Amino acid sequence: MDLTTIKSPDFLKKMSITELEALSEDIRRFLITKLSATGGHIGPNLGVVELTVALHKVFNSPKDKFLWDVGHQSYVHKILTGRACEFDTIRQYKGLCGFPKRDESEHDVWETGHSSTSLSAAMGMAIARDLQKTKSYVVPIIGDGALTGGMALEALNHIGHEKTDMTVILNDNEMSIAPNVGALHSVLGRLRTAGKYNWVKDELEVFLKKVPAVGGKLAATAERVKDGLKYMVVSGMFFEDLGFTYLGPVDGHNYEELLETLQYAKKTKGPVVVHVITKKGKGYLPAESDTSGAWHGPGPYKIESGDFIKDKNVPVGWSALVSNTVLKMARKDDRIVAVTPAMPVGSKLEAFQQEFPDRMFDVGIAEQHATTMAAGLATQNMKPFLAIYSTFLQRAYDQVVHDICRQKLNVFIGIDRAGLVGADGETHQGVFDIAFLRHLPNLVLMMPKDENEGQHMVHTALTYEAGPIAMRYPRGNGLGIPLDDELKSIDIGTWEVLKEGTDATILTFGTTIPMAMEAAEALSKKGIQVEVVNARFIKPMDEEMLHNILKSNRPVLTVEEAVLQGGFGSAVLEFSSEHGYYSAIDRMGIPDKFIEHGSVTKLLEEINLTTEEVINRVNKLVRPIQKRLEVK
Amino acid sequence: MDLTTIKSPDFLKKMSITELEALSEDIRRFLITKLSATGGHIGPNLGVVELTVALHKVFNSPKDKFLWDVGHQSYVHKILTGRACEFDTIRQYKGLCGFPKRDESEHDVWETGHSSTSLSAAMGMAIARDLQKTKSYVVPIIGDGALTGGMALEALNHIGHEKTDMTVILNDNEMSIAPNVGALHSVLGRLRTAGKYNWVKDELEVFLKKVPAVGGKLAATAERVKDGLKYMVVSGMFFEDLGFTYLGPVDGHNYEELLETLQYAKKTKGPVVVHVITKKGKGYLPAESDTSGAWHGPGPYKIESGDFIKDKNVPVGWSALVSNTVLKMARKDDRIVAVTPAMPVGSKLEAFQQEFPDRMFDVGIAEQHATTMAAGLATQNMKPFLAIYSTFLQRAYDQVVHDICRQKLNVFIGIDRAGLVGADGETHQGVFDIAFLRHLPNLVLMMPKDENEGQHMVHTALTYEAGPIAMRYPRGNGLGIPLDDELKSIDIGTWEVLKEGTDATILTFGTTIPMAMEAAEALSKKGIQVEVVNARFIKPMDEEMLHNILKSNRPVLTVEEAVLQGGFGSAVLEFSSEHGYYSAIDRMGIPDKFIEHGSVTKLLEEINLTTEEVINRVNKLVRPIQKRLEVK
Repeated sequence: MDLTTIKSPDFLKKMSITELEALSEDIRRFLITKLSATGGHIGPNLGVVELTVALHKVFNSPKDKFLWDVGHQSYVHKILTGRACEFDTIRQYKGLCGFPKRDESEHDVWETGHSSTSLSAAMGMAIARDLQKTKSYVVPIIGDGALTGGMALEALNHIGHEKTDMTVILNDNEMSIAPNVGALHSVLGRLRTAGKYNWVKDELEVFLKKVPAVGGKLAATAERVKDGLKYMVVSGMFFEDLGFTYLGPVDGHNYEELLETLQYAKKTKGPVVVHVITKKGKGYLPAESDTSGAWHGPGPYKIESGDFIKDKNVPVGWSALVSNTVLKMARKDDRIVAVTPAMPVGSKLEAFQQEFPDRMFDVGIAEQHATTMAAGLATQNMKPFLAIYSTFLQRAYDQVVHDICRQKLNVFIGIDRAGLVGADGETHQGVFDIAFLRHLPNLVLMMPKDENEGQHMVHTALTYEAGPIAMRYPRGNGLGIPLDDELKSIDIGTWEVLKEGTDATILTFGTTIPMAMEAAEALSKKGIQVEVVNARFIKPMDEEMLHNILKSNRPVLTVEEAVLQGGFGSAVLEFSSEHGYYSAIDRMGIPDKFIEHGSVTKLLEEINLTTEEVINRVNKLVRPIQKRLEVK
Repeated sequence: MDLTTIKSPDFLKKMSITELEALSEDIRRFLITKLSATGGHIGPNLGVVELTVALHKVFNSPKDKFLWDVGHQSYVHKILTGRACEFDTIRQYKGLCGFPKRDESEHDVWETGHSSTSLSAAMGMAIARDLQKTKSYVVPIIGDGALTGGMALEALNHIGHEKTDMTVILNDNEMSIAPNVGALHSVLGRLRTAGKYNWVKDELEVFLKKVPAVGGKLAATAERVKDGLKYMVVSGMFFEDLGFTYLGPVDGHNYEELLETLQYAKKTKGPVVVHVITKKGKGYLPAESDTSGAWHGPGPYKIESGDFIKDKNVPVGWSALVSNTVLKMARKDDRIVAVTPAMPVGSKLEAFQQEFPDRMFDVGIAEQHATTMAAGLATQNMKPFLAIYSTFLQRAYDQVVHDICRQKLNVFIGIDRAGLVGADGETHQGVFDIAFLRHLPNLVLMMPKDENEGQHMVHTALTYEAGPIAMRYPRGNGLGIPLDDELKSIDIGTWEVLKEGTDATILTFGTTIPMAMEAAEALSKKGIQVEVVNARFIKPMDEEMLHNILKSNRPVLTVEEAVLQGGFGSAVLEFSSEHGYYSAIDRMGIPDKFIEHGSVTKLLEEINLTTEEVINRVNKLVRPIQKRLEVK
């Protein structure tokens, strides 16, 4: 059928299983075709075609509430709720969001992006429903990877205790982004291989009925064995222990099983876990046979061959640059270990893993545990490299404060994907890190201007022994400049003048250096000589240089790809105020709003973080002074 | 024995059980006496006397590593490691810390204060031990309450998967600070009542051996039943499912059981959970019979009667003021619900709980879940009041960013214990909240000057429908001013002039208003007229008033009981820079270091946040202007 004609999921109610299967084929073809052009989370979405269709057939959205954990698997849901016609724009500027978005559709009742939030939100919705005495089903759909996130476990514990009506769909594809780790994963593995719940239970009951009646203590024990049956691990005991009814495992690509089990779940009182086994990439061979995670969320690809369409000769990626430098240093310093919360692929730690399997720890989606575990390692004279995306480090803020910074431990935090990330949008922009880290005592925070300085900063961090040190680096690739053969350290808290100038100073770092340099060139042609400083240490700042700049009374512009409030520019204002300077200081950065998805270039234009604006701002800063000079 | 003569725990090795029991008596008497004068965590420490002694007898600290989760139960450990002589100073300025502190003793290997960090840190230490090929035991001691914290569950999942050698002591006293909630608690309850592990297992095996041999399918099933035995819930299945060997339950006040089980745990490979049942307050009747949590960490008390020694006629406590006002409003608006992560007593929500048990949710130690659950409630047109301490809100930073602020949901966050908290020290100071919240889009952040304004702010928050709104309020009591009968709303983003003046302006809010007013009075006598503004909205600020102040070119001093970097003062600097003002602006607040324990007055003196310093700063700001005037 033509999916772009779908207005609401109502049409599913009358469909036979044969028709549903045909629809699934159409959806798969649609996804494979559309995403080959735009890129997107093809693997997760191919895995949940039947599950999503079945959910919309059995439940009544938006009255019943679907909460898509993480949310990158909501494409089929978007198609069934009337958004197929917008799929050419997915993850593009002003286009369809790659995650659930409340203002896109009444069927998107909860926005996600970060993992493991759905159960807590569902509990809130279920409580509201019960207090408001309305009837509806609350249905969080959570992957086996997201389930190991601490807040999901907190929620399981609470929901099971309260016995609130809720239908939790456990979408078990045996991997989240990379293959999963953790004991819970083994629990699920045992459940998967154990076959159907009821079969084992029934068989055991039959067996026990045939046990000859015996008197006294043995009879009492027999009763206890019977009672214990419902706790057998093969029957979802783990979840039942937590207060849930466990149903499954169900083949997530079989409509008969899915529909029957979901109907049964609807009738079950209290919290239910429906354990659905799905296959990531199902129905598209390149994605289905992927074990590395490459098809989790790729860019454009050729449909027939499954080849990724990539720019050729791109410079080294930032994650690879950092992880490879850590690896190089780890060969010489066996105190160095790597810790990642479920991002070995994204953080390009595969080579490290290969070479030092004993010194690499993928702890699953568990940012808090990863961070404090790194702290624990540091107390024992190890040098942990914690590789974590800026946006996910938010989840470990307290661990950075309370465990790492307060105890002044030698942890190297690699803050990946710092700044705007583009297509993943507002839940993934790495724009808050400076504001939430700069006020922490004992922390060194830096950002390199290019990949060569980046590798030296990694060396700096891994040889620094005076407390925590963090380096932020952007998503994407370096500038293509050559790397020095020898690694060296950069003195903590030193900046670098990139261009001399006496009319104004631009203080900037990382990704905004090129726009500052361009602006300075353009201004130079108009007779305004701007000094450009690579303010590579955000904390501590280069106080000596800052004193000299502010003493000269020339105006200062700070430029950063991070939120303005409490950011680097504010640090400069604070310093100036503290020391009683009166220079004009202006700041450029990310304004006080959440920045949606789109290419980074488009987004920078939207928020006026551009070369042109740098020129404008410098002009405005310099003009009053020039006027004064003219008057003289 | 004289506990102050103890230098190290070595003396325990030779002691008989009778001698250990006598020692326990001495420790209890010591704690009850000392803490009656200083206050402190008497309940938790009386509960772990035998457990701590047994741990130090069986293991060899500091080679073997004890990690005290939360850490308020480490007093006995402090006594046994040579710190009894300092107990008169506990929790006082420059005195013994109420939590483990690495620079106090080599036996304190991990600092705590916030809950649920010990397992992650222990995992880091155990990995380091194994990589360094040394031999030692890593022994985290975690309460049943702290176990429900998400990061502890993340750690359990990882440790069980890796099968790392570790001896987890589960100190199960059936309550953390308040009685515990959550399904895990029920799991523990079943374990407690089930009796000894081995007993049930053995009995069942005997039973099954007596089952007559049957052929075919039934025989196979019998085998499977046998295999299943080790998974029976009565034998710690929950933990065994996660990859741990479960030992227990053990009577935590019985040396024979304790020593035997700990010895057995030492010999067991892989991760072990020793389930120890203890009684909070054991051996001191008033504390032992407490069910409310009043004896968790009381102030001074009379030993014989168990009466608390309290100041008479103190004004209403801030927590009570806020919670009672929420309750008052909840009577008229049934959309209002209260959510607390394990702090119903600390947040004074008992009356709310009593009157609206269905609308009050204590989710256990689970700040992340509490916060996102509040967000979920808000999506369904409820008005959740999230009562949370400033320091614990750090644990939910990402949930505030990603779930509440990004979705612009109507959650009222009551930030309790904001500012310096005193005796609990650096892990509990509520000094970062402004810096970690101010940069979040859509959030309103305010702080009242007194309890009357406080109740109106609660009204403001609970009638505000345009997104998240947070009110911070300090630990302790109000100023004793009368409360208006009628609640009213305060216009968002409006400040209030408390004292007129044209020579300088002090912008301040909350607890620092009195020092600003005193300073202004003193300055007035010297001819300097200072305007004092109650800057009660930290975000959004009163831009109209701020424009007027900065236009007047009079110098500005900001004063806040919060970190300076990225704080309220920085917001004023940012505003001034943005609008091109040139007024002199100085800022007072908490400097860039962690502030240890001690009375709030002492701490404020230490960091120079005093009336005298306000006077100094204003003088310095005003002097150059006065000089300029004199020259004219």
